[in-house]
Amino acid sequence: MNSFAILFGGVSYEHEISIVSAITLKKVIGQNTVFIFCDANREFYLVDAKDMKASYFSSDRYKKCDKLSLQQGGFYKKTLFQEKKIEFQTMINLIHGKEGEDGTISSLLDFFGIEYIGPRIEGSVISYNKEFTKLYALSRNIEVLDYEVLKNTDVRKCSFDYPVIVKPLRLGSSIGLSIAKNEKEFDYALDVAYEFDDTVLIEPFYDGIKEYNLAGAKTKDGYIFSFIEEPLKQSILDFDKKYLDFSRSEGVNKAKISKDLQIFMEESFKKLYSNIFEGAIVRCDFFVKDDKLYINEINPVPGSLANYLFDNFNEVISDIYLPKNRIVPIEYRYINSINAAKGK
Amino acid sequence: MNSFAILFGGVSYEHEISIVSAITLKKVIGQNTVFIFCDANREFYLVDAKDMKASYFSSDRYKKCDKLSLQQGGFYKKTLFQEKKIEFQTMINLIHGKEGEDGTISSLLDFFGIEYIGPRIEGSVISYNKEFTKLYALSRNIEVLDYEVLKNTDVRKCSFDYPVIVKPLRLGSSIGLSIAKNEKEFDYALDVAYEFDDTVLIEPFYDGIKEYNLAGAKTKDGYIFSFIEEPLKQSILDFDKKYLDFSRSEGVNKAKISKDLQIFMEESFKKLYSNIFEGAIVRCDFFVKDDKLYINEINPVPGSLANYLFDNFNEVISDIYLPKNRIVPIEYRYINSINAAKGK
Repeated sequence: MNSFAILFGGVSYEHEISIVSAITLKKVIGQNTVFIFCDANREFYLVDAKDMKASYFSSDRYKKCDKLSLQQGGFYKKTLFQEKKIEFQTMINLIHGKEGEDGTISSLLDFFGIEYIGPRIEGSVISYNKEFTKLYALSRNIEVLDYEVLKNTDVRKCSFDYPVIVKPLRLGSSIGLSIAKNEKEFDYALDVAYEFDDTVLIEPFYDGIKEYNLAGAKTKDGYIFSFIEEPLKQSILDFDKKYLDFSRSEGVNKAKISKDLQIFMEESFKKLYSNIFEGAIVRCDFFVKDDKLYINEINPVPGSLANYLFDNFNEVISDIYLPKNRIVPIEYRYINSINAAKGK
Repeated sequence: MNSFAILFGGVSYEHEISIVSAITLKKVIGQNTVFIFCDANREFYLVDAKDMKASYFSSDRYKKCDKLSLQQGGFYKKTLFQEKKIEFQTMINLIHGKEGEDGTISSLLDFFGIEYIGPRIEGSVISYNKEFTKLYALSRNIEVLDYEVLKNTDVRKCSFDYPVIVKPLRLGSSIGLSIAKNEKEFDYALDVAYEFDDTVLIEPFYDGIKEYNLAGAKTKDGYIFSFIEEPLKQSILDFDKKYLDFSRSEGVNKAKISKDLQIFMEESFKKLYSNIFEGAIVRCDFFVKDDKLYINEINPVPGSLANYLFDNFNEVISDIYLPKNRIVPIEYRYINSINAAKGK
């Protein structure tokens, strides 16, 4: 039986990124992998491994593939007389951005009883909404940068000194994000961000802040952590650079940090991960400023699952702990007792 | 065309309650309603209005109904040569508890493009997890009772004086909830709550605290609010009483409160509702203690949609504002530009 199925594409601004991410992961996890593409119309297609090239999707050639339907237990292909289940052990949710990371895909896979690597609903909602990430991190005693939330019906002002960074509340991948150095730029930054969300998050922008990325997951034997990377300096990641980032399978700029900071970062990761991110390979993006650690972002579906940060990635996806849904007994106890009382 | 479809049943401890709730709502919203039942195996069935009786489900007779599948655009019934879409305008998500209120059903309906009344993913996750409700309410400047969160791997103690109330972190309907007056009872209360969730929430228990329920929704013309009810006194709702509560269509004990408190409660409701509960008819359960208002619970799928609290319920479900998903353009801009650069 095939070990893994990669689910990619999806309806989000990261649709293309997800394709690139899947092509990259194909090289890393190798043989016996099934590829299932979710297109712009939210239809699922079974893609042959040999066709896993970006142009196959941009040219619509994927439409010749078999369409799949979701039913209890898995994805099914219709044949002339029956429906045939697509066989695999574990699905990898590699849909980045909106429906892949906001809980929609998680819900689908949970509901239809498909085993998968990826965030569950709670972790998705908490990490996808940047305000919820802040509230959640603070409740776990992890520091966050100051912030303000503005709705598109609010007065266009913030109480921080410039420069500030303006982000749509809910997108990933730096889309719609800008740095504003004065009021005019702030106004424009709001216009841009409101294109993507009716709510924005504003933070003071600190030039030269240190950034560190740490990926990890809970396995049956405890946590596995990646190297810690200090991403190459640029004042801000733009979408093109981020795009390249999703196709990475090597070239890590290992952070030169003290053992103490490394351990502190790993302990912070655990506090954030524990109890809502089980089942996912998560990349936490931390900041360090004036000797203090801040969480910036929790990525529950990082580009190509941050494989390039691990030297034992295949172990991670084989050993990851996948939470099971609790069994809920449905027994009609109350209806039966009421009917009994009525003499029925 | 049928106006509404009621989706009920579902995999949760409130499965039976949802059946009772749907039968009640049938009487309230009347003609031209479609009934779709989700059974313990998460299969969907089209139920004839005349069969909407509790024993029809507890006796498994519903299994003779047509099975439905979820596909883009709606629920479909298989006929000999084709698949036929079940026609209705708006679905009412009336699945109480777990999958109905934790975001799973919302995700399904969003993904398959079905218009519905009910909470979206964010509102679901925030209201279903009692700790997230607290964090969220505090961020909106709404008071909450003190609380502590305990995991089943933690030391079994809390820092409040007895009596305390112990609740599973994620269930609704008072299931698994107990009041503990001493250490021994506390230990037993934890045993009970951990049966339902690996995390529990503990609060001081205040006997004689005032409770008020207010339901409402955003419509195209602003908010519609229900009467405010002071639920009949009992030290705590047990499951049997709650069960009856879900079949209510009348008999409201209107709260005798000042106009000021009413307005303050409505304003608090708006702060909680705004931006994550749009699309749902929500019932907020408030406490008043020492002249201070606290939010206790946000119910985004209240029993029979709290119809009994409104004197214009049919207006509410007709006029409710239903948020639309933003259109995400999928254009293959990056893949095309990279292929162009490569001369493809």
